[in-house]
Amino acid sequence: MTPSNQSFKDSELRQDPITGKWVVLATARAKKPEDFKKGAAEKEEIPNRKPECPFCDQKKFPQKPTTLELPSGDDWRVRVFPNKFPALVEKDSVKERQEGIYRAIEGVGYHEVVVSRGHNDYPYRSSEADLMLYLKALRERYLHFTKQPTVNYVQIIENHLQGAGASLEHMHGQIFALPIVPTDEVLDLLDGAEKYFQKQKRCGYCDIIEYERRQKTRVIFENDLFILLAPFAPRVSFEQWILPKEHQSGFERLTDVELPQLVEVVKRATEGLNKGFANPPYNMYLYSSPCDDTGSYYPRDQYAHFHWQMHFLPRMGMMAGFEMATGVEISTTLPEDDANFLRSQF
Amino acid sequence: MTPSNQSFKDSELRQDPITGKWVVLATARAKKPEDFKKGAAEKEEIPNRKPECPFCDQKKFPQKPTTLELPSGDDWRVRVFPNKFPALVEKDSVKERQEGIYRAIEGVGYHEVVVSRGHNDYPYRSSEADLMLYLKALRERYLHFTKQPTVNYVQIIENHLQGAGASLEHMHGQIFALPIVPTDEVLDLLDGAEKYFQKQKRCGYCDIIEYERRQKTRVIFENDLFILLAPFAPRVSFEQWILPKEHQSGFERLTDVELPQLVEVVKRATEGLNKGFANPPYNMYLYSSPCDDTGSYYPRDQYAHFHWQMHFLPRMGMMAGFEMATGVEISTTLPEDDANFLRSQF
Repeated sequence: MTPSNQSFKDSELRQDPITGKWVVLATARAKKPEDFKKGAAEKEEIPNRKPECPFCDQKKFPQKPTTLELPSGDDWRVRVFPNKFPALVEKDSVKERQEGIYRAIEGVGYHEVVVSRGHNDYPYRSSEADLMLYLKALRERYLHFTKQPTVNYVQIIENHLQGAGASLEHMHGQIFALPIVPTDEVLDLLDGAEKYFQKQKRCGYCDIIEYERRQKTRVIFENDLFILLAPFAPRVSFEQWILPKEHQSGFERLTDVELPQLVEVVKRATEGLNKGFANPPYNMYLYSSPCDDTGSYYPRDQYAHFHWQMHFLPRMGMMAGFEMATGVEISTTLPEDDANFLRSQF
Repeated sequence: MTPSNQSFKDSELRQDPITGKWVVLATARAKKPEDFKKGAAEKEEIPNRKPECPFCDQKKFPQKPTTLELPSGDDWRVRVFPNKFPALVEKDSVKERQEGIYRAIEGVGYHEVVVSRGHNDYPYRSSEADLMLYLKALRERYLHFTKQPTVNYVQIIENHLQGAGASLEHMHGQIFALPIVPTDEVLDLLDGAEKYFQKQKRCGYCDIIEYERRQKTRVIFENDLFILLAPFAPRVSFEQWILPKEHQSGFERLTDVELPQLVEVVKRATEGLNKGFANPPYNMYLYSSPCDDTGSYYPRDQYAHFHWQMHFLPRMGMMAGFEMATGVEISTTLPEDDANFLRSQF
């Protein structure tokens, strides 16, 4: 046992204190931020409007009926509608079938896209007012889905650019409302948070925030309500997390008064990536407690210990066999250095 | 409850009976095999020897000292040596450190590459004798690592072509010997297998094999000793698993007498992909029981219930935010149709 803040040279395995998930920080394979820049940057300047973009020209490319428009009318800045190629189908109940030793349920749920007016209204370059409407739209639809009887978990994500799996370049978020709580990443988070709470009688994420604010090395930015940090055991180089500083289990509990401060932190997270790496592709995930309030699977209060959070994972490398086989990601930088680099972008 | 073998139309959520992991089969977004072909094929014909390839010209690009050569001498067909940019460092013991609420251990372990003589000696085109030497080399090094006191789990993988994360085109496998058992994918498999055994008093994979041989729809090929099948809840379209038909927990227990039959099945798995999709990139993972026999973490007998297996996952699409955030993969075909297509390639 080496009780120290000094990382092991060349290679270190770090463990997430909530999920128990291991990562490899193979710094012997290290790259400098410049090396990442070349790999990740998508050079072309993206225009505000692009011909043949289905989201820029919704007259020519009709979308499914809009479920939310902010503000409503001709001056809309954010629109929400069902995905044209949904992964889930909208039904009133979830049927199940058993095939020998196997189990399957119907893929019932909702799959919506949240689209900005401008083709390139990415968080780091959109106005604060527009970014606020975008986050508000996510919250409104999130809240709506939590009330559906077939829904047990809602996953909000954003795939930024093709390099992160986006099929369209136009700025858009996606909401998946599922009839199950995903077993892998999500249940590990939720169960980890609950186990931590049972053992320590405190929220693990509240502990992380307190510790990180004292340490400062991994804090990238904070305002009164939110903190932006590089996690101790990151899955990729330059991963960033946003957490509300006061304990809050569900994203939908975020108030209009709190929203401007979230806007500020999201801007910082995405500006840092853009300035450091010239608009790299990234994935954003928003994790929040399961939402079923019918009591059938996960009554909402059971996960009051969870602490909602947004993760930003730039695509600096490629997931290969080892990472996919084991779930153990290998990255080549330390989050302490990542945080330092990202802070220096402002 | 709909007890039937008929899949739900448009979208179905299937659960792996061992790990409990869910996948989405969104067949409403379906593609035909031809659509995959275009996406996945790397068109260029790959030569048997390529200038400037570090594995073709090991004189010009010296590698670390060879740890195994088969056969030994100038006529070698397979060589094993430590990775030039290892993710893990070779040491005699594993140090640990505590940083506040966090835990880290030194990234101790082994990271080797297993290289064929010819640049393009891929399983589907190499001779049976060469493929046997390749699998033998994997087994020999696997066995060697299981005996190291710092090693608790060995992961064998193959990244086939750049599209699957390979940094070099030259045929090579990789062996990672780790001081921990990875929490996510691997522990889910091991713990799932153990729970299944506790409950059913039978190995879950033996049950799968028995059920699939009766059903036939997902069986792609079998010989006396091995079965090749499309799993009920695949993570990607055209995923294939190879399992020994008789229960065997550790890959290193495979005998020389059994090897030729494994060669035959590996050839089928990779030939099917090559014929169907013109040499697509894929990842191969070999899962076997944890290997520590010092008793410190996972005594080997504890995982006697596990059933070793090889997975082949062609890279037909791209992992995007939803899959990464939740661990729930979305694919657009049914494994029953995949198996049918792959069978038709012979």
